[in-house]
Amino acid sequence: MTKAVVLLSGGLDSTTTLAIARRDHAVVAMSFRYGQRHGPEIDAARKMASRFAVERHVIVDIDLRTFGGSALTADIAVPKDRSLDEMAGEIPITYVPARNTIFLSYAVALAEVVSARDIFIGVNAIDYSGYPDCRPEFIEAFERTANLGTRGGVDGSNPVAIRAPLIQMTKAEIIRTGLSLNVDYADTVSCYDPTDDGKACGRCDACQLRRKGFADAGVPDPTRYA
Amino acid sequence: MTKAVVLLSGGLDSTTTLAIARRDHAVVAMSFRYGQRHGPEIDAARKMASRFAVERHVIVDIDLRTFGGSALTADIAVPKDRSLDEMAGEIPITYVPARNTIFLSYAVALAEVVSARDIFIGVNAIDYSGYPDCRPEFIEAFERTANLGTRGGVDGSNPVAIRAPLIQMTKAEIIRTGLSLNVDYADTVSCYDPTDDGKACGRCDACQLRRKGFADAGVPDPTRYA
Repeated sequence: MTKAVVLLSGGLDSTTTLAIARRDHAVVAMSFRYGQRHGPEIDAARKMASRFAVERHVIVDIDLRTFGGSALTADIAVPKDRSLDEMAGEIPITYVPARNTIFLSYAVALAEVVSARDIFIGVNAIDYSGYPDCRPEFIEAFERTANLGTRGGVDGSNPVAIRAPLIQMTKAEIIRTGLSLNVDYADTVSCYDPTDDGKACGRCDACQLRRKGFADAGVPDPTRYA
Repeated sequence: MTKAVVLLSGGLDSTTTLAIARRDHAVVAMSFRYGQRHGPEIDAARKMASRFAVERHVIVDIDLRTFGGSALTADIAVPKDRSLDEMAGEIPITYVPARNTIFLSYAVALAEVVSARDIFIGVNAIDYSGYPDCRPEFIEAFERTANLGTRGGVDGSNPVAIRAPLIQMTKAEIIRTGLSLNVDYADTVSCYDPTDDGKACGRCDACQLRRKGFADAGVPDPTRYA
């Protein structure tokens, strides 16, 4: 089994991505404490890393609050009860500036140090197209940049591939894929504004899209709502 | 004056870059404490930020020691007394995996939050070509990636330009440029292995290239050597 780095937030998408990566790879998981509101995600990430028997789980502290500018890191209210129309086509206030660029940069560094060829990220361009750094053209450009900026990319000894297996899936397809790989979604945290004990608000964009995903997939929603 | 983010390590190159940026821009400087050996750099960065009257100086703590893999962040000896031939054409052990990718990613986030269009970085491809993430093709690819991954790049409201004004200069040219802009190089720190009070070892690659730069420029070397 070749080695892969998996960006693991502990949410529905990244946990499914971990399950996919584990079919063919030994995994070094990487999570970030970035001053986000949704701290319970890290607990979920630990649980999932352990359940899918990763080789190592690296948790990095980075302080995106230094910059502000997002409802996920600054003192701005998380929007609630928005319709799908309201979510579509605009970049939401929960956008964190350059977040995936920063996360992927760390993943590239880790991949180089542990000699991993594949970096998995659970971005998705379908259900939630508002984030610019979740689109295929961004992922492709980042991969190219990474290979121009690292020892292993330049000398050809260890070019990295950025793998985004969910990028063209609907939330329902993601859920069905995860269930077939034994993901227990009860323990994943998607909510942008969860309670301290990890219960979901049920009303933010992430909760609504997740709930709709279970409904569309025709399977029970195991999320613990507040 | 439009606003620019300047990556400022406190070394010779980044300080010259700051001086260049200040001719035309209000500056938000950004420095990193990344577990590097050369902590005195941060003191130098503060001094330079103040001397060039930046609007704000953001110092970010990131822990690249999590990964290891470099003489600058791990417990690996910094090479000394290497000839220029030995330095040329190979990626040195002082290479920090994906360092400039990580630094630039943070700079992009900061630029987005403070609405800066230009990001200055003091990379140089001539005198010290061993680092893959100092080459023009890396910088160009990164700029493209950044504009695909940020709100301001995608909606066109604030695309960023990565400016690397030193990239094709020799060290002597950099020094002459800085002197013409009133940089006092006595207070910049380039050494990979300085003493606690900021004196340079005089023997690492960075010291040797710096010393040669002053000699080639035909100006006195004000560096405080141990």
